[in-house]
Amino acid sequence: MAPRIAHLGPIELLTPRFDASLAFFVEVMGMEVEAQEGPSTYLRGWGDYQRWSLKLTAAATSGMAMLGLRATGADELGRLAQEIDAAGLGEGWHDGDLGRGDSFRFRDPDGHRFELYADCERYVPPPGREPALKSVPGRYVGRGCAVKRLDHVNLLAADVRPSRDFCVDVLGYRLYERIELDDGSEAGAWMSATIAAHELVYTRDAHGAHGRLHHAAFWVDTREECLRAADIWLDAGVQIEAAPSKHAIAQGFFLYGIEPGGNRVEVTTGGRLVYAPDEPCVVWTEAERAKGQAWGVQTVPSFHTYGTPPVDGDA
Amino acid sequence: MAPRIAHLGPIELLTPRFDASLAFFVEVMGMEVEAQEGPSTYLRGWGDYQRWSLKLTAAATSGMAMLGLRATGADELGRLAQEIDAAGLGEGWHDGDLGRGDSFRFRDPDGHRFELYADCERYVPPPGREPALKSVPGRYVGRGCAVKRLDHVNLLAADVRPSRDFCVDVLGYRLYERIELDDGSEAGAWMSATIAAHELVYTRDAHGAHGRLHHAAFWVDTREECLRAADIWLDAGVQIEAAPSKHAIAQGFFLYGIEPGGNRVEVTTGGRLVYAPDEPCVVWTEAERAKGQAWGVQTVPSFHTYGTPPVDGDA
Amino acid sequence: MAPRIAHLGPIELLTPRFDASLAFFVEVMGMEVEAQEGPSTYLRGWGDYQRWSLKLTAAATSGMAMLGLRATGADELGRLAQEIDAAGLGEGWHDGDLGRGDSFRFRDPDGHRFELYADCERYVPPPGREPALKSVPGRYVGRGCAVKRLDHVNLLAADVRPSRDFCVDVLGYRLYERIELDDGSEAGAWMSATIAAHELVYTRDAHGAHGRLHHAAFWVDTREECLRAADIWLDAGVQIEAAPSKHAIAQGFFLYGIEPGGNRVEVTTGGRLVYAPDEPCVVWTEAERAKGQAWGVQTVPSFHTYGTPPVDGDA
Amino acid sequence: MAPRIAHLGPIELLTPRFDASLAFFVEVMGMEVEAQEGPSTYLRGWGDYQRWSLKLTAAATSGMAMLGLRATGADELGRLAQEIDAAGLGEGWHDGDLGRGDSFRFRDPDGHRFELYADCERYVPPPGREPALKSVPGRYVGRGCAVKRLDHVNLLAADVRPSRDFCVDVLGYRLYERIELDDGSEAGAWMSATIAAHELVYTRDAHGAHGRLHHAAFWVDTREECLRAADIWLDAGVQIEAAPSKHAIAQGFFLYGIEPGGNRVEVTTGGRLVYAPDEPCVVWTEAERAKGQAWGVQTVPSFHTYGTPPVDGDA
Repeated sequence: MAPRIAHLGPIELLTPRFDASLAFFVEVMGMEVEAQEGPSTYLRGWGDYQRWSLKLTAAATSGMAMLGLRATGADELGRLAQEIDAAGLGEGWHDGDLGRGDSFRFRDPDGHRFELYADCERYVPPPGREPALKSVPGRYVGRGCAVKRLDHVNLLAADVRPSRDFCVDVLGYRLYERIELDDGSEAGAWMSATIAAHELVYTRDAHGAHGRLHHAAFWVDTREECLRAADIWLDAGVQIEAAPSKHAIAQGFFLYGIEPGGNRVEVTTGGRLVYAPDEPCVVWTEAERAKGQAWGVQTVPSFHTYGTPPVDGDA
Repeated sequence: MAPRIAHLGPIELLTPRFDASLAFFVEVMGMEVEAQEGPSTYLRGWGDYQRWSLKLTAAATSGMAMLGLRATGADELGRLAQEIDAAGLGEGWHDGDLGRGDSFRFRDPDGHRFELYADCERYVPPPGREPALKSVPGRYVGRGCAVKRLDHVNLLAADVRPSRDFCVDVLGYRLYERIELDDGSEAGAWMSATIAAHELVYTRDAHGAHGRLHHAAFWVDTREECLRAADIWLDAGVQIEAAPSKHAIAQGFFLYGIEPGGNRVEVTTGGRLVYAPDEPCVVWTEAERAKGQAWGVQTVPSFHTYGTPPVDGDA
Repeated sequence: MAPRIAHLGPIELLTPRFDASLAFFVEVMGMEVEAQEGPSTYLRGWGDYQRWSLKLTAAATSGMAMLGLRATGADELGRLAQEIDAAGLGEGWHDGDLGRGDSFRFRDPDGHRFELYADCERYVPPPGREPALKSVPGRYVGRGCAVKRLDHVNLLAADVRPSRDFCVDVLGYRLYERIELDDGSEAGAWMSATIAAHELVYTRDAHGAHGRLHHAAFWVDTREECLRAADIWLDAGVQIEAAPSKHAIAQGFFLYGIEPGGNRVEVTTGGRLVYAPDEPCVVWTEAERAKGQAWGVQTVPSFHTYGTPPVDGDA
Repeated sequence: MAPRIAHLGPIELLTPRFDASLAFFVEVMGMEVEAQEGPSTYLRGWGDYQRWSLKLTAAATSGMAMLGLRATGADELGRLAQEIDAAGLGEGWHDGDLGRGDSFRFRDPDGHRFELYADCERYVPPPGREPALKSVPGRYVGRGCAVKRLDHVNLLAADVRPSRDFCVDVLGYRLYERIELDDGSEAGAWMSATIAAHELVYTRDAHGAHGRLHHAAFWVDTREECLRAADIWLDAGVQIEAAPSKHAIAQGFFLYGIEPGGNRVEVTTGGRLVYAPDEPCVVWTEAERAKGQAWGVQTVPSFHTYGTPPVDGDA
């Protein structure tokens, strides 16, 4: 099928500690404030082509309020809306969020909220702040981790399979890797709309909860920047959950931590590129996962249980 | 239009100094020999999923004999063959090269030879040589530059525009960047079938010749590996044409040199990713190009004139 | 002889464009302001253990006003003062500059001004700004190039040899590398008080002038940070004189540019470590230097002529 | 006191699995065989200036047979021998090992065997194998991890303090960092003869055994090479004990594993440089060590107990 989704994002994150979360994304992660509206601030990485890729909203709890998906065009947007409605998951059309055309809302089978759109405004640097290279959306921000753009999102699902099937069958995602436990159930699914190793990931919610976020990942171009980010987080007192290392799945290089509002955030780079049109899906077994990350690091237990909003017993 | 080309490659390079060229690709670049047939050796990088991405063939001269293009599927292959025939550029069906299904040959408007195919064998590591991570095609080769895979190809054309149009209109490539000289003519076009910054590039042949190769680029995952490759080339006596630096166009990091047979080879990494489905083509002016590479390095004159096979006056 | 000099620095730079120079060192280079006195601002890199390593002073011209040298102790300071006086180069004792004990001033044979001292205050982070790791002087500064510390200084001399001899014979520097031209004269001398490849460098002044500065080099820990610095300079409009590459001499990785006041500044990393107590001095010939930098990049002409303060005919 | 030790090394390692250990150091670590004598093979990294930095000897068990220390000169060698004899630790003069002048043997207070020497042969590349840059001892070896040279050694001691005192008081090492437990005892001491963060380290033997080795560390120039080494070890089936990360102490970047003979080996880079002549020793408390490595990674238990030769209960 022709690609229907160009890419994921923006994402809207909720935070019960708005000021601290905003300071984290601006000062520590190095994102730029693009706009402010009501309880929300719109931010972008220096390499995001849209006006914003993160909407940070003050709320009573943490978690993901909305995940944007940009359709490859207006026709695809229309077709998708129809098929999603047919699948019983549609929630109707709305005026688009900041700088965005009409948007179609829906929920995935697990209950996460999405917003599909085709049109959006590009970021235009203010006069005198144009980047030196015209193929870059904005100036490199030499501040903090200087994350470039939103890269991928990992959603927790009580049952991975229905959401994975929906993404593949309706949204047109390709399934590159997955975990199949000994009992035949699916513990995780790594999907992408492009050759990038993973854009949309579902992993099993250890608490059987619905609609929770595992993490939002922001891109840097090099592993050195991931290592540097760890130094910056350390000095800034950010809670580092997993120090920089390499995933076996998708081969991404990571740094995980918890932003002040409680949401898990990743600084990521690397990850394999999948050029083969018939690339077989890599299936990881329970025994293989027990080996830990690529270089044998055992993931900390919280990584397998914690999500936002938090649930009883895992705060 | 739905993507018709999954990716480019393999490439067949001719060399009048076969043994030296082979030693370069194996010992210096770190590629693996997969097969030998007649005057040709088939090689792959450790991250190439196909059995081979480079066919090195002993010949009276240098240059590119053939550039493979993998169609996204059998249907697309058929449609492409029809349209290419309709454009008067087809050269008919042939048995595929090593491990490859039926292939359709054609020439681009400038005269370079291509071979379209849909089916190909994947590389299977020999027993006991399986990589530790099952999402990697083969073991990392800790030898020389250890290039991972063929990345992109830059072809010289007497007239860039017709070949660019053919690639966009018939093959379905996206045009991400181009150079438009003050006289309105096109000095270069950077195209891709994916989100990768550039896969197929045409630049103007300074000699007005046809069918020549500017360079074949092999991928490494990090800029540090490009820098390391320069050290390796230096000790190995490889002719370094351009030391590692960063391109303004497409933002790729490069190292250029001339392999013993005379063909220009690049070790490359980086390069922007284009996620926007409506990304505007970046048009570089003559004045902008006069600024040199990204950080102001002026390209050496030979880079603008030399190609293979060499022509009179530029050997 | 037992080491007499622990390390070089701080350095005092003059600038006729004080505000722009200060903005460069703070915003672009990422240094911290430690103090302000009269026409001078005192700055440090996040990894400098002293309170300051750069004193920036408003003046009618550019150039180096003073180069500090820290003696390994009070006894060595006394002995050095005596020997320098005996050599006819002493200029007497003075109260130390900010946070520094009594200092002995002198000029090298070429006329550059130095200040020797033994005691100095260490930087103490303000409460609440302590670095996470107690073996680091201060918090990593995630701003701009985030240079860590002053690394080395290259001084122009009308005649390299006398200054080199003075540094080796009196100050106790080790001579690691030098350039000997075909006529037997010395075009450059790379010296160090430690195992670091080069700390104090003299190169020939193309104009035969005295007391001029070639460049002051600031350290970053990785080559990736040098590459990143080039991107930052590019967007900030800093004049890049030489894009990142690798020196043949001493093997340092470099980025050179001109700060707004006119002084040449380097962002540097790498460089060989010399552990052998009897390491032979590497002597580079004119022919070898003609090969360019390590990977063959030809140094831009200005690099061989420009210094500060500028002289007629080379502004 | 004037420096008496220039640097540590070579090291002699024992292995009960000689062929596998040799293959590890040559094929995986990328060292070069320089000579073979009886049960021993002499190896060097491409950047070692001596003919060898590692002597690998077939034996019934693992462990360190000898650690070389190069004196800064013949006079210092003589003085050191006298003082070591006076301390009751000397074992007399011997003909030097391969390419080495007369050597004085001794044991540290914990019982490890050392060999002091002043003269040694430099490595001379064979004709046609000279490195391109004359300031490099040998050609870069594009094979495996391509370790550059022996960097530092960590010795286990039943009681750290006497060995630390001996190294500081007699050998002239500087003490840069140490661990002091709540009971006032010393759990580790990081010492250096240069500005490099650590060259000779003692840590407490959890089994109270004597003369055991914790690890020998080999240098690479970049963190990227450490990460790459982890990939190489993974594919080669090397037992990775600790994936790449950063130490809090000394700030070195590491990769630890067990070579086939059982000895722990590190691939290392980074580490702070200590320029201040009066740098205070950093004292780490038990509570601070409980925080794990720099980025919070908890060291695996074996790291605190395993050494070679192994002792009962920790094989």
